[in-house]
Amino acid sequence: MSSTQYRIGWIGTGVMGVSMCGHVMARVASVTVHNRTRDKARPLLDRGAVWADTPKQVAEASDVVFTMVGFPRDVREVYMGENGVLKGARPGTILVDMTTTEPALAREIDTAARAKGLHAVDAPVSGGDVGAREARLSIMVGGEAEIVERIRPLLETMGKTIVHQGPAGAGQHAKMCNQIQIAGTMVGMCESLIYARKAGLDVETMLTSISGGAAGCWSLDNLAPRICKRNFDPGFFVDHFVKDMGIALEEAKRMNLPLPGLALAHQLYVTVQALGYGRKGTHALMLAIEHIAAMSDQA
Amino acid sequence: MSSTQYRIGWIGTGVMGVSMCGHVMARVASVTVHNRTRDKARPLLDRGAVWADTPKQVAEASDVVFTMVGFPRDVREVYMGENGVLKGARPGTILVDMTTTEPALAREIDTAARAKGLHAVDAPVSGGDVGAREARLSIMVGGEAEIVERIRPLLETMGKTIVHQGPAGAGQHAKMCNQIQIAGTMVGMCESLIYARKAGLDVETMLTSISGGAAGCWSLDNLAPRICKRNFDPGFFVDHFVKDMGIALEEAKRMNLPLPGLALAHQLYVTVQALGYGRKGTHALMLAIEHIAAMSDQA
Repeated sequence: MSSTQYRIGWIGTGVMGVSMCGHVMARVASVTVHNRTRDKARPLLDRGAVWADTPKQVAEASDVVFTMVGFPRDVREVYMGENGVLKGARPGTILVDMTTTEPALAREIDTAARAKGLHAVDAPVSGGDVGAREARLSIMVGGEAEIVERIRPLLETMGKTIVHQGPAGAGQHAKMCNQIQIAGTMVGMCESLIYARKAGLDVETMLTSISGGAAGCWSLDNLAPRICKRNFDPGFFVDHFVKDMGIALEEAKRMNLPLPGLALAHQLYVTVQALGYGRKGTHALMLAIEHIAAMSDQA
Repeated sequence: MSSTQYRIGWIGTGVMGVSMCGHVMARVASVTVHNRTRDKARPLLDRGAVWADTPKQVAEASDVVFTMVGFPRDVREVYMGENGVLKGARPGTILVDMTTTEPALAREIDTAARAKGLHAVDAPVSGGDVGAREARLSIMVGGEAEIVERIRPLLETMGKTIVHQGPAGAGQHAKMCNQIQIAGTMVGMCESLIYARKAGLDVETMLTSISGGAAGCWSLDNLAPRICKRNFDPGFFVDHFVKDMGIALEEAKRMNLPLPGLALAHQLYVTVQALGYGRKGTHALMLAIEHIAAMSDQA
């Protein structure tokens, strides 16, 4: 049968999940949802999704189960817990974790799924709340090629760049690469902006000189202007970014790979959290950089 | 008179200078050139530029003198030396240093120029050899607004983004902002690429997932593919980038501003030099990152 005829399960209806599940719903006949806080699933229930009390019950009612939750511990509970997905899924069910989580955990779920005749796919995304809303996500996919192709039409309802990266865990690894690049870019951007201010430049005038050339990047185009307006509302939460960098550093350690730039970015973002800005957007790194600069001035 | 009627002097005809001076030549009647190595000025002499044996003699023959040399010590010698520009320039002459150099040196030249009734402008560029050749440079300009406007038509022959950043030294400061952003971006990129390889991803496939989103940047688009092809030919020399970062760190120290990300990038690039890759392009950072990773593997 075509993937749009699958009965779909969706677990995790936060800011990202509610948009993403909404796109899938528009293309399929049956969607069963679960979320820790039922209220957040309301927009989907209003459109005809069926509520289930546990991840297990979602799996029982579904051919393909998507999960988009918060932290690795949540992923573990949703899949492996007493009332988890693995308890309810029948053989042949496809499990698609779109949470950014540990590559090692993705492989662990894959192994547990195989033992029950299930198929696991890891498919973390980038593009943030706007990308989720506008179905323009980049989806990085790990798992068996044949299974990935089977669910591709469903993924295409949510994203514009869907790339199969390799076996189980490879989607998570690709997402780590994304976050490592962003970590370096953000440190460069905030240090550039604080230098400009201290040197007496007009920051926006400086940006007109550098944004179009070899320093050009998405962050300069999209986040630097928000910093100039002192708008630190989240596109993507600092807390989640710190989680992601922590995962990448752990994996790197496992691979005997030193990543000093990422380690520094991680520490600076821990400073952002320590200052109380964990629920601000990643560009709140600027607030920590400013804080450190101000301390140095007073020294 | 219109700026294209000025008699132009040009000092420094390296890879960048020869292209840039060529663009100016196409629009003006008279160009006098000097370079440490006369041979490199040959293409310009062949097109009718007049040779001068010293910077002083260039200045004597010119209404506007452009300089595009290598290091701050070269700039100092060209302007302040025994046979320097300041010795030959008549009152009213405009001196435009396009070398990336110390903001403090730009202000020093400005002060010395004023004392002789001359006008100093600092106008470093970004865009590399390709930008110079195709007249698509970003030119960051410091100096008096009225003087900057007078030479704008000349700058427009060389670049597409010409922005007045403020008083003497402001052009150099803006260029430092450019380099600080690039430093962070490059560290993020190379760490992302080494992580991908160690994790067993296909690097080019990984790039298709991350290049179009929030991790997107000029370096991923232009330098990562060269790294994949193991082509480390210079767009922009490691040695020059290390110089620029050193200047930014010195200026930051002067401003009591800690820039840990830049300091780390600088150290990693010093490692690139130590490995003998100073005359490779900035993306040769990857060679140092690989070297460090290989050492860690053997430990």
